[in-house]
Amino acid sequence: MNNVADLIVAKIAEFGAPVCIGLDPFPELFPDELKASVVSRYGDTVQAVVEAIYEFNVGIISATADICGVYKPQIAFYEQYGAPGYEVYQRTIRALHDAGKVVIDDSKRGDIGSTATAYAAGHIGKATLFSGSMVSCLDADFVTVNGYLGSDGIKPFSDFANQGKGIFVLAKTSNPSSGELQDLKLENGRSVFLQMAELIRSWGEGSIGDSGYSSIGAVVGTTWPEEAAILRKALPGCFFLVPGYGAQGAKGTDVRACFNPGGQGAVVNSSRGILYALRRPALQGMHWKDAAREATLEMRKDINSALK
Amino acid sequence: MNNVADLIVAKIAEFGAPVCIGLDPFPELFPDELKASVVSRYGDTVQAVVEAIYEFNVGIISATADICGVYKPQIAFYEQYGAPGYEVYQRTIRALHDAGKVVIDDSKRGDIGSTATAYAAGHIGKATLFSGSMVSCLDADFVTVNGYLGSDGIKPFSDFANQGKGIFVLAKTSNPSSGELQDLKLENGRSVFLQMAELIRSWGEGSIGDSGYSSIGAVVGTTWPEEAAILRKALPGCFFLVPGYGAQGAKGTDVRACFNPGGQGAVVNSSRGILYALRRPALQGMHWKDAAREATLEMRKDINSALK
Repeated sequence: MNNVADLIVAKIAEFGAPVCIGLDPFPELFPDELKASVVSRYGDTVQAVVEAIYEFNVGIISATADICGVYKPQIAFYEQYGAPGYEVYQRTIRALHDAGKVVIDDSKRGDIGSTATAYAAGHIGKATLFSGSMVSCLDADFVTVNGYLGSDGIKPFSDFANQGKGIFVLAKTSNPSSGELQDLKLENGRSVFLQMAELIRSWGEGSIGDSGYSSIGAVVGTTWPEEAAILRKALPGCFFLVPGYGAQGAKGTDVRACFNPGGQGAVVNSSRGILYALRRPALQGMHWKDAAREATLEMRKDINSALK
Repeated sequence: MNNVADLIVAKIAEFGAPVCIGLDPFPELFPDELKASVVSRYGDTVQAVVEAIYEFNVGIISATADICGVYKPQIAFYEQYGAPGYEVYQRTIRALHDAGKVVIDDSKRGDIGSTATAYAAGHIGKATLFSGSMVSCLDADFVTVNGYLGSDGIKPFSDFANQGKGIFVLAKTSNPSSGELQDLKLENGRSVFLQMAELIRSWGEGSIGDSGYSSIGAVVGTTWPEEAAILRKALPGCFFLVPGYGAQGAKGTDVRACFNPGGQGAVVNSSRGILYALRRPALQGMHWKDAAREATLEMRKDINSALK
């Protein structure tokens, strides 16, 4: 499948729910037995932390592989541990691809010209060796991108949009202060986030797949249903990556505004709400992997009911 | 010195010019003898590329160490080579610190809440091991940050602003398409970039050093002198990181608008114009390090004359 929007649409249909699991490792929240195991092998080192991250991720993936088709590792939690962290990020993406999953590399990169070209090469393309031969580094399906710098920052990524890769550009983010800039009204009556949406629409025009969606998607927080409804109307052919569910407070009914009629066109992410589900009073006593599975099943049900 | 704005001001005074050398490695532009040397040792591998990057950087630093106090490695060019690239980025920052330089980690990170906290930990702070002990990863003096997400994305970084670290937030970027979003006028009559400047000013209020500048600086492209003049007037106590000189087309006279009266308050970056100076017809035949030094001396003279 050469259009990655078609791929994510197909993957959601295959698994029966528009759900994405965010792999945001907080080592301090890892199960005690996992911590003890890596510390006994590697001591109190960076290596212990990154091995724990990998084992934790593999545990989450295996516990949810039959009920989720889309995963979103967040690079900040990995790169804070330097090169070993970066390597585990790479291994995590490889494990996800080996399991047949769609991978959204949540890196929110944003730069211009040759720098954006290098980011695109590293995240969804290939880097060049001295002979001119090429090597993949992360090789994600999608990468998240910040569009504040305009087309110059997007073009090097969107060049891959008809080669089976895609991006999600930040439109309206889920955080409390997102409105400080994004909600301001322009002279033309549009808000900044809607102006960004117009740019996203134009960037995506050339890469619309059979599903009707473009490989150039948008990040739209589910914590702002009113703004999400405006964006949904403005961008019918744009696939939405929807953060904010679960730990950030949103519920199934809140996500409706992010979907097109028929419950299409978006994937909802939850990270902490699934990974650390064992901390919920109702799930205590379970194995941590079973708790994560249970939380994923609940999320699927919650969202699918809301979209009916 | 606990305020990093004071540090950069002092470093510029010590070296006699507000000049920053950008370490943007383009392996294909490296000198042939360097390529041949690493390929003979490591073959046509990622290892050959990253070793060449390190040797190239060390060569540039040693050739310019007595005439430049501020360096800005750009992470995109390193991370495209995965974990080995990340490790060389880290080694480059260490080499710069060993040489007594101010390091601006040009990563343009931008995210929210716990994710921004992890970025801040990795780039200017410390990450946590299982025992609670802390390890530095990049430990840069400054990191560049994208403010599209508002205060939530800045706070985790600015928490380090009174601990000897700082950030440069994108205000008006140097690229041709920067105006697509940044130049739009808001209902209040301000442009988006000026609104961002107001946020930057407010974020920096609590961390103004003896120099009169805050640890929360701004990125202001010198390719837009009119907009730079507006920003300079709006943000007298904000230190500017100024890209766009040299390869991007700007000359000394263009940078004036980025400085306060007296030629203070900004540092001008050049990357390709210095690193690959050997490619200029006038400098051909020199050793590549001497050519880089010559280009740095020219840039110092050009900017210092313009600021007189």
